[in-house]
Amino acid sequence: MAKAPILASRTEDFPQWYQDVVAKAELAENGAARGTMVIRPYGYGLWERMQAEMDARIKAADAENVYLPLFIPESYLRREAEHVEGFSPELAVVTVAGGKTLEEPLVVRPTSETLFGELMAKWIQSHRDLPLLLNQWANVVRWELRPRIFLRTTEFLWQEGHTAHATREDAAAYARRILIDVYRDFMTSLLAIPVLVGMKTPRERFAGAINTMTCEAMMGDGRALQMGTSHELGTNFATAFGMQYLDETNALQPCWTTSWGTTTRMIGGLIMCHGDDAGLRVPPRIAHVQVVVMVVRDDDDGTVEAEARRVAAALGEAGLKVRVDAQTATGFGRRATDWELKGVPVRVELGPRDVGEGVVTLARRDDRSKATAPAAGLAERVTALLEEIQAGLLDEATAARAARTAEVSTIDEAIEAARTGFARIPWEAVGDDGEDRLAEHGITVRCLQREDGSVPDDGGEAGLRAYVARAY
Amino acid sequence: MAKAPILASRTEDFPQWYQDVVAKAELAENGAARGTMVIRPYGYGLWERMQAEMDARIKAADAENVYLPLFIPESYLRREAEHVEGFSPELAVVTVAGGKTLEEPLVVRPTSETLFGELMAKWIQSHRDLPLLLNQWANVVRWELRPRIFLRTTEFLWQEGHTAHATREDAAAYARRILIDVYRDFMTSLLAIPVLVGMKTPRERFAGAINTMTCEAMMGDGRALQMGTSHELGTNFATAFGMQYLDETNALQPCWTTSWGTTTRMIGGLIMCHGDDAGLRVPPRIAHVQVVVMVVRDDDDGTVEAEARRVAAALGEAGLKVRVDAQTATGFGRRATDWELKGVPVRVELGPRDVGEGVVTLARRDDRSKATAPAAGLAERVTALLEEIQAGLLDEATAARAARTAEVSTIDEAIEAARTGFARIPWEAVGDDGEDRLAEHGITVRCLQREDGSVPDDGGEAGLRAYVARAY
Repeated sequence: MAKAPILASRTEDFPQWYQDVVAKAELAENGAARGTMVIRPYGYGLWERMQAEMDARIKAADAENVYLPLFIPESYLRREAEHVEGFSPELAVVTVAGGKTLEEPLVVRPTSETLFGELMAKWIQSHRDLPLLLNQWANVVRWELRPRIFLRTTEFLWQEGHTAHATREDAAAYARRILIDVYRDFMTSLLAIPVLVGMKTPRERFAGAINTMTCEAMMGDGRALQMGTSHELGTNFATAFGMQYLDETNALQPCWTTSWGTTTRMIGGLIMCHGDDAGLRVPPRIAHVQVVVMVVRDDDDGTVEAEARRVAAALGEAGLKVRVDAQTATGFGRRATDWELKGVPVRVELGPRDVGEGVVTLARRDDRSKATAPAAGLAERVTALLEEIQAGLLDEATAARAARTAEVSTIDEAIEAARTGFARIPWEAVGDDGEDRLAEHGITVRCLQREDGSVPDDGGEAGLRAYVARAY
Repeated sequence: MAKAPILASRTEDFPQWYQDVVAKAELAENGAARGTMVIRPYGYGLWERMQAEMDARIKAADAENVYLPLFIPESYLRREAEHVEGFSPELAVVTVAGGKTLEEPLVVRPTSETLFGELMAKWIQSHRDLPLLLNQWANVVRWELRPRIFLRTTEFLWQEGHTAHATREDAAAYARRILIDVYRDFMTSLLAIPVLVGMKTPRERFAGAINTMTCEAMMGDGRALQMGTSHELGTNFATAFGMQYLDETNALQPCWTTSWGTTTRMIGGLIMCHGDDAGLRVPPRIAHVQVVVMVVRDDDDGTVEAEARRVAAALGEAGLKVRVDAQTATGFGRRATDWELKGVPVRVELGPRDVGEGVVTLARRDDRSKATAPAAGLAERVTALLEEIQAGLLDEATAARAARTAEVSTIDEAIEAARTGFARIPWEAVGDDGEDRLAEHGITVRCLQREDGSVPDDGGEAGLRAYVARAY
C-alpha cells in the first residue's frame, strides 16, 4: 500500500491543506459546541506570543487594559441602532440562569463596544480625562453559519481598543498610530507578513465609522485576509452614549472616538501566508519553539541524549526558546516530519557519530536545507540563522505578493487578475458601480492607498489606488 | 460642613470599607448584568501582574496552556454525576443563537472540567503521553445570589489546571508541587500573604476529589479566605471520561488526575490582607505602579516637572515601574490621598525648593512615613526601600495572623476564638461531630496540617491540627 501523503496538496486543494495543517500540527480542533474551537498547546503558544508582543505595543501607545463583563443586557444593544443591526443575527442569548428564566435576556458579547460606550461616558467628565485610551483582551461570540478554525469561529479571542479624544485630529492621529505603529509593525516585524495598509471604501466601512483603516495580507492561494482594522468613529458613537466632556471654557463638547481590533484569525493568516507543502513555517520571532534539539538515534550509554541536553541548555542560556526531542522510541523520520509540520524554524540533529566528531546537523525549516556545523559556538550561529530565516520569510512573502499582484486599469482586468491574486487599479476606474460589478464575482476592494503605499490623510479620493481581491 | 471620611472605618465596618476601597481606588465596579464586574485599569493591572507571575510558575512546573470553548453542550455536563450536581443551580444557559432556538442548549462554562476530561481522554493513548499537564486562563460563569466584587462574582477570571498521570504517587506529587511551588510560593513571595497550606476535611473536599489541598489566608477582620486549591481526583474523573492509557505491557490502565485553580478573588485577598485606614497597600513585587513621582506644586518655568520626569526616567531605567503625576491643576493633598488609596508603595515628592536643594521627599505607603533623601543615587535607595516594604508587609501580615490565632483544645474554645480570628485545635478534638457544631456557628475547618505546618502525605489523621475560622 502506497504511503498516503501527510497533507492535501497545497496547490490543488488549499482549503483542505489548511485544515490538514491545523489538525496535524496540533494547532486546534473543533469544539463540541458548533463552530467553536479547542486551541491546543502548540497553537495556543503562538497566540500567547502574539498577545504578549501586541500587548507591549498597545501599552507603548499608552492604552491601558480593562476587563468588561461577558454578558450584556439585551436592552443595551439597542442603544446604538446601526450597531445592533449589524450584529443581531449573530447573537447568542442566555435566557436561563440560576435555574430560572431571566426577566431580561443576557447577550453573550459579540463585542464589548456598547459597554465601553456606557462606561467611558461615565468616566469622562472634563478635558483632563482625555484622551482615554482603553483596550481589552477577551473572548467574543458571533454565531457563524460556515465556521472555519481560526478564520471564522463562533467564539474567538481578540483585543478591542476603544479611545476617546477631544478633537477629530487627535482621534484620527491615534487610529493611524494603532494601524501603523502597533498593527503593521507587529505583523511585519513579528509575523513576517507584509501587510498593505489603507482605507476601506465607504461600503466596506465598519457600521458607524467615518473612516475604517485596515491591514490586508495575501495568503498562499492569492486571496486576501483582513488582519486588523482601526476605525475613526467621529462623534457618532459618543453621541449614542452621551460621551461628552467639559472643555477649558466649561462648554460641553462631544468626544471623538476610535476603535480597533485584531483576533485569533491572525493565526490562520500565519498558516496561510507562510505554510508550504511540508506544513507550517513559523517565523522565529513569533515562535514559542524556535529550536528543537533532536536525538537522532538512541545509544546505550545515553551519551547522545546528554549532549543534546547540554546543547539545548547552551542555546537556552543564549535566550533561545528550545525543546529537546529524545523520544527515540519513535523513528527519527517520523519525528523530523512532525517538527516540520509544526514549522519549528531550526532543528539541531545529533547522532552518535556527531557527538564523537563535535558537530551537529542544522536543518532549516524555511528552505528545508541541512548543513553540518561545529557544536562549538552553536548559539551564535543559530541566533544568526533565526534572524536570517525571519528576514527570508518576509522577503519571500513580499516577492510572492508582488508576483501575484497585477497593475490593471479596467474592472474586467481586475476581475481576471483576482482569480489568482490582487489587482491594483486607479480608484477612479472603480467607484461605486465598479464595486457592484466586482461583488458579482465575489471580489471586493480590500483597501485604498496613495500611490506610494501610504494611507490617505483625509477623505480625498484623488490619485488613490484600489487593491482588489477575493478575500477570506 | 465637616469633611466626610474617604473610607468607612475598617474596624467598625470592614465590609463597607472593602467596598469603598474597591470603588475609590478605581479597582472595579459592578457590571450592568447582575453579579458581574468591570475591572478598571488600576485593578486589571494587578491581575495582569498576578497572571504573568503565576503563569511563569505554572510553566516552570511543565504545564502548557490551552484554550477550550466557552460553551458546553448541556449533555456533556451530565457525564459526571457528582460534578453536575455541584454546579447545576449556578449555570447560565444559552437557548437562543443566530436568531433561532437551539436544539440542545449550551451551558456557559462554570469550569472547563468536562471538556478537559473529554479531550484528555482523546489525547492520551499510551504511557508515553503521560504525564499530560494542561492549564487554561479563562472567564467562567457561576450564578451568584450574593455577589461581591472579586470575592464572589457571576463571572470571574481564573486559571484551571488539569493533569493526568500514570500512578497515584505521581499525581499526588504533582498536586502538591502546584500547591507548594506554584501557589504558596506566589502568594508568599509576590502577594506577601502568609498562607497556611493544608488538607481539607472530607466534607470540605471538592466533589469527586480523594484529596483537596488548600492555601488559606487571614484577612484584616480575622476571617479566612481560600486563595487557591489543588485536588487529587484519584481515578474518579478519569473513569467518568474513559481516560485510560496502555502501559509498558500493553495493558489498559486508568489515569490518575489532578486539578487546581486560582481566581480574581486573589485581588480581594490582597485588598483585605494588606489594606489599612488609608486604603489599599500593594506589595511592591506585585505592583504595576511601584513608584509615583509627584510634582508638589506648579512653577512657571516647568523646572519641577522637568526634574520629576528626569527622576522618573532614571528610576525606570533601573527597572522600576514608575508614573509621573504632574496634574498640578488638582491640589497636592487630594492627589497624595488618591495615590495612598491606590496603595502605590512609594511616592517621590518634588517641590520647587527640593529641586534647588537636590533632594526629594520619599513617602512610604506601608507605614505612611516620610523622609528627605538626596536626588542623587535615588534608584538604588528606592529599590532597597521597595524590598524592605515587601518584606515588611509579609512580616506584618504574619504577625497579625499570629496575634489572632488561638491555640485551643475544645470546640467551645474554637467557637469563641473564631469570633475574631483563627483557632488551632487538635483534629481528634473536632472530628465529624465537631464540624457539625462549628457549622451551626458559621465556622468551618479551613485545613488540616501537621504539627510543623506541613501538609500531610497521606490520609492518616493522627497528630493533625485543624485551623478553624469563619470564612469568605
